[in-house]
Amino acid sequence: MVNTVLNILDKVNTPDDLKKLNTNELNELAAEMREIIIKKVNTTGGHFGPNLGMVEATIAMHYVFNSPVDKFVFDVSHQCYPHKILTGRKEGFTNPETYHKYTGYTAPEESDHDLFKVGHTSTSISLATGLAKGRDLIGGNENVIAIIGDGSLTGGEALEGLNNAATLGSNIIIVVNDNDMSIAENQGGICNMLTELRQNNGEVKNNFFKALGFDYYYVGEGNNIEKLIETFSKVKDTDHPVIVHIHTIKGKGFKPAEDDREPFHWILPNTLDRLNDAPAPQGESYESITKEYLLNKVAEGSPIVAINAATPGVFGWNKEFRTKMGSHYVDTGIAEQQAVAMASGVAKRGGKAIMGVMSSFIQRTYDQLSQDLALNNNPATLLIFWGGISNADATHLCTFDIPLISNIPNMVYLAPTCKEEFVRMLDWSVNQNEHPVAIRVPFSITYSGVEDKTDYSDLNKYQIVEKGEKVAIIALGSFFGLGKEVRSKLAEAGINATLINPKFITGIDKNVLEGLKSNHSVVITLEDGELDGGFGEKITRYYGNSDMKVLNYGSFKEFTDRTPIEELYERYHLKSDLITQDIENVL
Amino acid sequence: MVNTVLNILDKVNTPDDLKKLNTNELNELAAEMREIIIKKVNTTGGHFGPNLGMVEATIAMHYVFNSPVDKFVFDVSHQCYPHKILTGRKEGFTNPETYHKYTGYTAPEESDHDLFKVGHTSTSISLATGLAKGRDLIGGNENVIAIIGDGSLTGGEALEGLNNAATLGSNIIIVVNDNDMSIAENQGGICNMLTELRQNNGEVKNNFFKALGFDYYYVGEGNNIEKLIETFSKVKDTDHPVIVHIHTIKGKGFKPAEDDREPFHWILPNTLDRLNDAPAPQGESYESITKEYLLNKVAEGSPIVAINAATPGVFGWNKEFRTKMGSHYVDTGIAEQQAVAMASGVAKRGGKAIMGVMSSFIQRTYDQLSQDLALNNNPATLLIFWGGISNADATHLCTFDIPLISNIPNMVYLAPTCKEEFVRMLDWSVNQNEHPVAIRVPFSITYSGVEDKTDYSDLNKYQIVEKGEKVAIIALGSFFGLGKEVRSKLAEAGINATLINPKFITGIDKNVLEGLKSNHSVVITLEDGELDGGFGEKITRYYGNSDMKVLNYGSFKEFTDRTPIEELYERYHLKSDLITQDIENVL
Repeated sequence: MVNTVLNILDKVNTPDDLKKLNTNELNELAAEMREIIIKKVNTTGGHFGPNLGMVEATIAMHYVFNSPVDKFVFDVSHQCYPHKILTGRKEGFTNPETYHKYTGYTAPEESDHDLFKVGHTSTSISLATGLAKGRDLIGGNENVIAIIGDGSLTGGEALEGLNNAATLGSNIIIVVNDNDMSIAENQGGICNMLTELRQNNGEVKNNFFKALGFDYYYVGEGNNIEKLIETFSKVKDTDHPVIVHIHTIKGKGFKPAEDDREPFHWILPNTLDRLNDAPAPQGESYESITKEYLLNKVAEGSPIVAINAATPGVFGWNKEFRTKMGSHYVDTGIAEQQAVAMASGVAKRGGKAIMGVMSSFIQRTYDQLSQDLALNNNPATLLIFWGGISNADATHLCTFDIPLISNIPNMVYLAPTCKEEFVRMLDWSVNQNEHPVAIRVPFSITYSGVEDKTDYSDLNKYQIVEKGEKVAIIALGSFFGLGKEVRSKLAEAGINATLINPKFITGIDKNVLEGLKSNHSVVITLEDGELDGGFGEKITRYYGNSDMKVLNYGSFKEFTDRTPIEELYERYHLKSDLITQDIENVL
Repeated sequence: MVNTVLNILDKVNTPDDLKKLNTNELNELAAEMREIIIKKVNTTGGHFGPNLGMVEATIAMHYVFNSPVDKFVFDVSHQCYPHKILTGRKEGFTNPETYHKYTGYTAPEESDHDLFKVGHTSTSISLATGLAKGRDLIGGNENVIAIIGDGSLTGGEALEGLNNAATLGSNIIIVVNDNDMSIAENQGGICNMLTELRQNNGEVKNNFFKALGFDYYYVGEGNNIEKLIETFSKVKDTDHPVIVHIHTIKGKGFKPAEDDREPFHWILPNTLDRLNDAPAPQGESYESITKEYLLNKVAEGSPIVAINAATPGVFGWNKEFRTKMGSHYVDTGIAEQQAVAMASGVAKRGGKAIMGVMSSFIQRTYDQLSQDLALNNNPATLLIFWGGISNADATHLCTFDIPLISNIPNMVYLAPTCKEEFVRMLDWSVNQNEHPVAIRVPFSITYSGVEDKTDYSDLNKYQIVEKGEKVAIIALGSFFGLGKEVRSKLAEAGINATLINPKFITGIDKNVLEGLKSNHSVVITLEDGELDGGFGEKITRYYGNSDMKVLNYGSFKEFTDRTPIEELYERYHLKSDLITQDIENVL
């Protein structure tokens, strides 16, 4: 791409600068912003379609309102790049050297124009009701504006927020950014309701928002700055709750993204340069194995159903797969609570429910795991993807799923270390009728080369992979490889350590642990997640009344933020040489 | 009360028997059922108003549908007594000797007519979508009927369920039991929407349910069996999603409960015999102290707001208190996610948010604690009531809040042991601006007699209450008294133990723990909740590489169900003599 000439943007450093521009200049600004977003995101990767769709609306909002006195709360903040550009952070988009300076989400530490650190969906309305209530108690008079996508609107928190916002009795403006897409297709009655509104220019017989008590405005041309300014000006300083429903075009300004919106929701670096390349051949992965397993089950006539909450891409559940699955596939929308409860209901009725979910998002459904699923002991299967320590944004950490899931009674949480175990565990889980089961699917596939014939119905049986003495290494799931490395390092120091693959996160194998006492003095546990409330502490508790020394390895209780993984491994001593040193210190 | 003559009910043992009755007999049956419910609940305590309101609808449902082939899913199951009476469990209501035989909630282990063990709200629609999906995959053709109260309809899971049910494309019938009340008054746009429907006999300009795509039926006389049968017969075997909105009278048939519905939602034994008694004088309690504190703050002009999710009675936030608080009180409806996010928003805007919540219900909002509150480090205060081991129903256990809250980064979770500490912690929390804080409010009040002057900003500082040697007792919150007892017992055995009040659940006082190493060989931890993922395991992990023996005491990872507390204390060794024995065994 050629260098961008930023005639207008060069003059815009704060929202105030924006207010001096005329309509033509605002449109030119939009074009310039769109160009730098495309260029930047294609270089670094990031959210693409949602940001392109919101350029005009963000300009119009900043033109009409007075941020940061007036408060914008962006839902999930997949669409906050235009806002960042207009609020003092344009260098993060114009200068390749500072492309990585700002997070891809709203972040109060970056700017007063960002109210909350947000990366999970469906929170903006609820957070905004709090800002509005705080304002009313203190006696302010600013506008509070929540911006929420049509996809996010299906989440329970958003709907609870709508219910509350409707009767707040004071200023709150909810901008529904309706681009007719979630990450994948939208789902459910809310989607249909929005479609009907769009198709009828906001005039329908039964208006959902009006039914809840909102004043309702529709802007069909949600990428038309003039129309947006006109409507935002009307609702500014309102004394009551208002919905402004704007119809925007996801991927606006980049034709391939307008035409095929799902793959352009979030893109990898250099995606746009490879549009015409043949798709890269995909090697075997836990995702591909899962898909194959599910499709085979469907072919066999099993009442199996793959359930997910609006993130099918996480598990490679692409359009082709979804089409093949047909009625055996359910996307609940952004609604993890519904997904878990539905899985429990399917299992109760004798169906086979497999829910896929990213570790960070299983957090959105604790009570349903506990009450709807575990208390009822219904045999649904949850596949938890991406669990582990990473360099992710603070909003997308995947280190908390073990403390979350494994302390719930009745849950069986399994940690495969290789393909062979994963396949066996998945098949066992689908065919049994006794337990709610979760499986922590590792990120990268490995192979043991040996068929796994374990009967997982015999709960909490650990596998002693190598029998040694003095030191025992209990290496869970994706850290089994690290366990092997530690064993090698110890061997160099003349120690023939025992290596254990626990397989079960949710229980203690007392026989194995008791057996270690006779000729071991140190046990270490390795887990790819938070130590506090995690797997290792339970082992340590077991040995509390004995002479066994126990060292637990995993991540600390902290929100890390795009911290390089090597730095984290160093900090947490998750390296074989550091661990070996620690062991030698206590031996 | 006189003995009840059950002319009709004597002949009704299964739903089939019901189908043989004529209208007069059905009405007589309703009267008899109502009478035994009143008598039974007045003897044992239990849910009163909701069950009285649902007598006719339950009769009509069982008359029209064919349970257990057709599947009823009762939300929260506050209204399942009539259903239990009609499905083989009437002895639980007619015979005082078997009054306690059945749980107050639906329970599949009791009857095939109960699909799920349910005690938390807003789950029925989601669970029913799962039953319906399972049916469709397997090829069944039964009716799936979710019964949900107007109060429960404000919960995020219920709304996610509605969104999904609307586009299920097959049979699902949602009976909205609208008695115009949650436990307390209903809140929000959904409440107003239902009111408008009731006031207009189901005919309004903007119908919320129709907007979502449901077929909609309204039954204004929701306690009229004939009318109900007529409508249920119309929707039976529908091939698409249907809402049947019925207007019932909470407390129907017992005048005081019809007139003043909140106190009769759930009643204590013998309540009806003492209706004219003057209210018993209330002693000081953590609830009364909290209320006084909040009212004082309002009087001082503080931007304080007390927030709760539809259970004000748990904290004694009665009508008088709510009226005095005025705009400083918010009931979000059954919407804990909204309550936490709103509290975070209020705090961000400089307001002082105090959210009250029962331990069992904090489970309904993990991700909001983590993302909306803790990640943003907003200084809201959560008061967690009733946390601890109890003889509660499996659906209402309060033993999981420590693992849930304390493993979230940034959260400060405090455990006062007495009034003095509670008052200090509450005031500190309200006045600081650094941390999201939760306080685990003990059930029973105790006094130290010494003003607490601790600066809790100095995080994770434990208090050494008694300095001894050999054995250290770390006794958390409501188990501090047990810690003192253990210390006394040990003294009898000649051991002068150290007693520690940790105060902070969320952190380790390394100085104190390290200091114990010099002249202690055993540390015990006592916590009134689940051991797995709890407080004590973190202490044990700290000592993992040392010679210190550590014994952790708390509840096991299990769903207990109305188990007597003495039995649980025995099982968990939560008795000073058992603990002392354990200690002597490792010394």
